[in-house]
Amino acid sequence: MPITAEHICQNLESVRRKAPLVHSITNYVAMNLTANALLAVGASPVMAHAPEEVEDMVGIASALVINIGTLSGHWVEAMLKAALRAEKKGIPVIYDPVGAGATPYRTRTIRELIQAVAPAILRGNASEIMAIADDSAKTKGVDSAAAAAAALASALRLSEAHRCVVCVSGETDYVIRKKEMARIHNGHPLMPKVTGLGCTASALCGAFAAVNPDHFAATAAAMAVMGIAGEIAAENAKGPGSMQVEFLDALFNLADAEIEERLKIS
Amino acid sequence: MPITAEHICQNLESVRRKAPLVHSITNYVAMNLTANALLAVGASPVMAHAPEEVEDMVGIASALVINIGTLSGHWVEAMLKAALRAEKKGIPVIYDPVGAGATPYRTRTIRELIQAVAPAILRGNASEIMAIADDSAKTKGVDSAAAAAAALASALRLSEAHRCVVCVSGETDYVIRKKEMARIHNGHPLMPKVTGLGCTASALCGAFAAVNPDHFAATAAAMAVMGIAGEIAAENAKGPGSMQVEFLDALFNLADAEIEERLKIS
Amino acid sequence: MPITAEHICQNLESVRRKAPLVHSITNYVAMNLTANALLAVGASPVMAHAPEEVEDMVGIASALVINIGTLSGHWVEAMLKAALRAEKKGIPVIYDPVGAGATPYRTRTIRELIQAVAPAILRGNASEIMAIADDSAKTKGVDSAAAAAAALASALRLSEAHRCVVCVSGETDYVIRKKEMARIHNGHPLMPKVTGLGCTASALCGAFAAVNPDHFAATAAAMAVMGIAGEIAAENAKGPGSMQVEFLDALFNLADAEIEERLKIS
Repeated sequence: MPITAEHICQNLESVRRKAPLVHSITNYVAMNLTANALLAVGASPVMAHAPEEVEDMVGIASALVINIGTLSGHWVEAMLKAALRAEKKGIPVIYDPVGAGATPYRTRTIRELIQAVAPAILRGNASEIMAIADDSAKTKGVDSAAAAAAALASALRLSEAHRCVVCVSGETDYVIRKKEMARIHNGHPLMPKVTGLGCTASALCGAFAAVNPDHFAATAAAMAVMGIAGEIAAENAKGPGSMQVEFLDALFNLADAEIEERLKIS
Repeated sequence: MPITAEHICQNLESVRRKAPLVHSITNYVAMNLTANALLAVGASPVMAHAPEEVEDMVGIASALVINIGTLSGHWVEAMLKAALRAEKKGIPVIYDPVGAGATPYRTRTIRELIQAVAPAILRGNASEIMAIADDSAKTKGVDSAAAAAAALASALRLSEAHRCVVCVSGETDYVIRKKEMARIHNGHPLMPKVTGLGCTASALCGAFAAVNPDHFAATAAAMAVMGIAGEIAAENAKGPGSMQVEFLDALFNLADAEIEERLKIS
Repeated sequence: MPITAEHICQNLESVRRKAPLVHSITNYVAMNLTANALLAVGASPVMAHAPEEVEDMVGIASALVINIGTLSGHWVEAMLKAALRAEKKGIPVIYDPVGAGATPYRTRTIRELIQAVAPAILRGNASEIMAIADDSAKTKGVDSAAAAAAALASALRLSEAHRCVVCVSGETDYVIRKKEMARIHNGHPLMPKVTGLGCTASALCGAFAAVNPDHFAATAAAMAVMGIAGEIAAENAKGPGSMQVEFLDALFNLADAEIEERLKIS
């Protein structure tokens, strides 16, 4: 069943109405933007990473988003505890494998997390997704421009092995669940010039998955909303500084008509 | 003695003239905004959380602000050390109990801090203040819309038990010291859509308490300045992204005439 | 050989063309702005601080920037490991001694880092540079207005002792390498009202040093680009909130003609 603008508007409306609590264990760089974007889209953000409390926080949350962008030992311990609790509780777990492939520690950590608790959604750029699936892949930091197409085979394998949705984001965002695929062609070249917008996309996947048990549709909706808000923002932005500001404003004000007019999905 | 616009202007002028060093041990999400808001209001921010140095940093500071928004073991240890040193030195300690009630760890930690060192000012939202005072209260994350009124009894008890000022912030901000109460009706609905503005309010309480030994008046001044800057910002903002930017600009440029015109206190 | 606008434009062009990966181990307050500024100038930022991965991250980076603004034990351990690996690999190491002199822990840590691995570039404000060189210097937090001139003797001593470039930033930025000195008179008084712009300057020094083995010229170029972008930003800013936004936009859009027109170097 193809995903339409109507579905996406309904998803966004659900997020705004239910204001799901999204528990994020994310990196220091993106934490503020992530929280602001969750607020702007209508969700309720909470950040907590202490092993002493992550299980309790999961206990009141509707989704758990784990991002390894500035990981360290204690944080990984907490990520694992939180993920296990989320699985037991039955709320969706979203992983953002920031920098997978850049160091063995990141690659190993995200693989261990996936092995311990399969995610509902795994969202990364092409090189990150390839690095998780395949030891021979190489990443240059977190901004690799490796062609997304080359990552689709990796995404398919990961989706099948872990029964999860995999999103390979880039100029086109690919949302994959086994043989299903949606391609979202929204977005703007200024977006990767703002740090943490990829992390923000994963957080929005959490917000949408919290209100829609069809995680394939939820991921597509989140990525479309990101891309459309980014397009609107770019029309008013003079550079990456104003882009971030305009993005939050656009996300907050996003209207159904804008989604209907701008959505490019195939 | 009622708090007037004139008092608030004098307090703001003192902050700007003395540029007090405000030592903040705060959460990762709000750290940048907190530092920028302290600079904008005229204070000097410093962030330090290592147990190795917090006592020395308190030694050169004029106020200590402790915020448990993303707490963990080592940080709590440092918070306690810093608070004990601040008490010994005689500078005001401000607590922001972010998410108290959301997890037992947070509730326990803030209670332990209060028991160890009574604050000059405790500032939280209604559900946080209730959670500290009363085990039966429940919080949904950090954005609870629990009616502030219901928290006033808790605030009064905490104020009496710990001989401190308690501020219950929300649509109306209540500043309580035993039987005294000030109500500040400034602010704007876009403010809770910007993450960390509550944390920022606590930091401003620190800046004002650093220059005014009457901590009741200092808290009222800080909350009024927050609310008025928020109102001015909202007039120029298109959403939560521009709201944050405009808020810092408004705080920096805040003029006595704006305080006089806009102040709504009772 | 004097540094000209043409040299600076060439350096900026190199950063944009090569997009060097700059590994930053920096403080929580400035992390987001630092990453955004590196992106805006054309570099690729990566943040990583876990002892488990810092050496691997240095292995793929072209410069390492270490900033002690919110240090703690585990982070210092990682800073040292990363610096040793960077020295072995032969990539430039930049230190930003935020708050040196404010606490003994900070002064001791930056001195230990310098003793272990001499930096390519050391960039701080006057009181920080003095505190490193001289036990009798005093800092009030991180915003000291101690006259930069008084720090030049300290900078000269540090430059000679560690065979490194020392930059004393302030209203005038002094770039010193033994007997060589460049003075950059660009910048704007709103810049110190935005938290983390000093940290950002150090990060840009890393980006420029990554593409120019003459670290004296690289530092001068980075500081000039900072100052000129700051001037352009200030013309459009209404206060410190919009200043940060405009700064990133100006950095991203910076044109050779603007550098040529505005550069004030002696």
